[in-house]
Amino acid sequence: MPEWRKDPVVDRWVVIASERGKRPSDYKVAPDLPRGGRCPLCPGHEQDTPPEVLAFRDSGAGSNQPGWWVRVVPNKFPAVRIEGDFDCRQDGVYKQMNGLGAHEVVVESTGHHRGLEEQPARQVEEVIWAWRQRSLDLRRDSRFKYIQIFKNFGQVGGASLEHPHSQILALPVIPADVQGELAGAQACWREHGGCVYCSILRQEVSAGRRMVVENEHFISFVPFAARFPFEMCILPREHQWDFGSIREEQVADLAQIIRHSLGKLNNIFGRPPYNLYLHTAPVNSGHYEEYHWHVEILPRLTILAGFELATGYVINPTPPEMAAAELRDAAVSRQEEARYSNQEVAQYV
Amino acid sequence: MPEWRKDPVVDRWVVIASERGKRPSDYKVAPDLPRGGRCPLCPGHEQDTPPEVLAFRDSGAGSNQPGWWVRVVPNKFPAVRIEGDFDCRQDGVYKQMNGLGAHEVVVESTGHHRGLEEQPARQVEEVIWAWRQRSLDLRRDSRFKYIQIFKNFGQVGGASLEHPHSQILALPVIPADVQGELAGAQACWREHGGCVYCSILRQEVSAGRRMVVENEHFISFVPFAARFPFEMCILPREHQWDFGSIREEQVADLAQIIRHSLGKLNNIFGRPPYNLYLHTAPVNSGHYEEYHWHVEILPRLTILAGFELATGYVINPTPPEMAAAELRDAAVSRQEEARYSNQEVAQYV
Repeated sequence: MPEWRKDPVVDRWVVIASERGKRPSDYKVAPDLPRGGRCPLCPGHEQDTPPEVLAFRDSGAGSNQPGWWVRVVPNKFPAVRIEGDFDCRQDGVYKQMNGLGAHEVVVESTGHHRGLEEQPARQVEEVIWAWRQRSLDLRRDSRFKYIQIFKNFGQVGGASLEHPHSQILALPVIPADVQGELAGAQACWREHGGCVYCSILRQEVSAGRRMVVENEHFISFVPFAARFPFEMCILPREHQWDFGSIREEQVADLAQIIRHSLGKLNNIFGRPPYNLYLHTAPVNSGHYEEYHWHVEILPRLTILAGFELATGYVINPTPPEMAAAELRDAAVSRQEEARYSNQEVAQYV
Repeated sequence: MPEWRKDPVVDRWVVIASERGKRPSDYKVAPDLPRGGRCPLCPGHEQDTPPEVLAFRDSGAGSNQPGWWVRVVPNKFPAVRIEGDFDCRQDGVYKQMNGLGAHEVVVESTGHHRGLEEQPARQVEEVIWAWRQRSLDLRRDSRFKYIQIFKNFGQVGGASLEHPHSQILALPVIPADVQGELAGAQACWREHGGCVYCSILRQEVSAGRRMVVENEHFISFVPFAARFPFEMCILPREHQWDFGSIREEQVADLAQIIRHSLGKLNNIFGRPPYNLYLHTAPVNSGHYEEYHWHVEILPRLTILAGFELATGYVINPTPPEMAAAELRDAAVSRQEEARYSNQEVAQYV
């Protein structure tokens, strides 16, 4: 029997339609087209990008030269521009403002073909440090109200470059979906005197049915009202509203749980397209102690079609509990299967 | 210079990023995979579907037999079910209810390969009459609060069958996106004493820059804050909140303007994937005289990726004014080019 489920934070109902395609093999993942040509993100091609805004590199190496292991550059084709002011113009019923913002690319590795989850743990930690450092730097510009970190993988996921990379957009407005989450978190705080995400965390750990993997500082689980099949949410155990406050021991655990969550997805679907994003509190616009930052991983196994675009609601053909069971059973990576399956990966019934 | 634009109805900002890919030839449209096998929607295969709930057919022909020209059947793999009650259950922070709803398929033609816009005008009118008749019938069930009519075309558009068809979902809740539009329309009505869609209509007709085609009862234009490249909105000139109230002369004009809008899109992109949906007032839940029903056409030339999924905001790489100019210049159909270009299609500078 299919079910309607309401997201516990925002006002969004999801149909869990268990009668439709449901097992991993029911999904066809479109293989990505091979992309040839010169890669602007590979070492030795530093001149193909705008000058770097951050790089972790060997002490001897000069900027915009090889010798880096993580590098952040402005997007060569930015969706928004850092120049200009911010005034709104009104033309009859229409309102517009300049395309103010910053748009950066985080080159996650020197290796062209290795996915984020295939990197050594230490390398993923370095990527997270780069996210944090750019987030702290960009918020110094008080015109920016939100720093959006996200990653597109695979052609269907919207990646236009094969080389592993993530993106950072600094925005002059708080995004609608974040506003929705803030409103939900604030309402819960007001009514129940506590954080809705902390309640979710307790309930997921206690129920176990939707858990995927956990470690000291984070849990990874399939949300109760997941919009996408095999969607995962990574939540810090500690109530922390600003990703910028992440501490060293948390960075290590976040790197591990991202690698393991993506690794399990890979082992089921074979490098499927996905989107990953980080939701954190807005900047330069007040206090948001009711919020709780988190990472979401959205495998792109289904197509958002007319119903989703018309209603804002989504049909998810795989029950979250079934997806979670498959993910729990999957190895973290082909190489590390033996090493992790009985140690770092918590096992649930 | 890119721009942020706010939708005049809902609280949604869009980046118009004119520096990115912008001309029709900048978009690669993924060709649809050919689909073989027996088509359950073709004449003679009526037994492959659940029994019809509506058919327009020759007077002599029996139900669930050939002889129809438009046929409506329940979806064989429904996302929602018409049986059962509607009670909400709470489990800790989570709320859920049964997957109540109706899910129907409108077979738009006997021809397997002809798109909606390639049908004769009369046939498109019949499809609209079927939409209306099912909408009026489904609302007689007071559990349903919204009747969502939509169409997926092409693989990227989410169509799982090649045979031309649209879908109808009857829902026990008012969709989030419709709620957003209702709230915007109600706020405008309260503050300005008028309909926001009527204001949009007047401003678009007067400005002309985003107009695509018009006739006596409708206009088709590219929205000021279009989310998708070459998106079009079809708006009745008359203030009418309920699609169910459509009159005969309006049906004829709606059929014409849908055919022409889609025909122009085809002539630019060669049968691109698209979604089409109809937004109208909710049913069985009060009065919505502030609303104004409309049809939206969303070509699927771009991919909704991490930024869109993280923020609810969208990057549209083609300025609406440029898209509108291309659409105005395009012929309505290859056959009818000469016939329409100087007559029924209004020309703007």
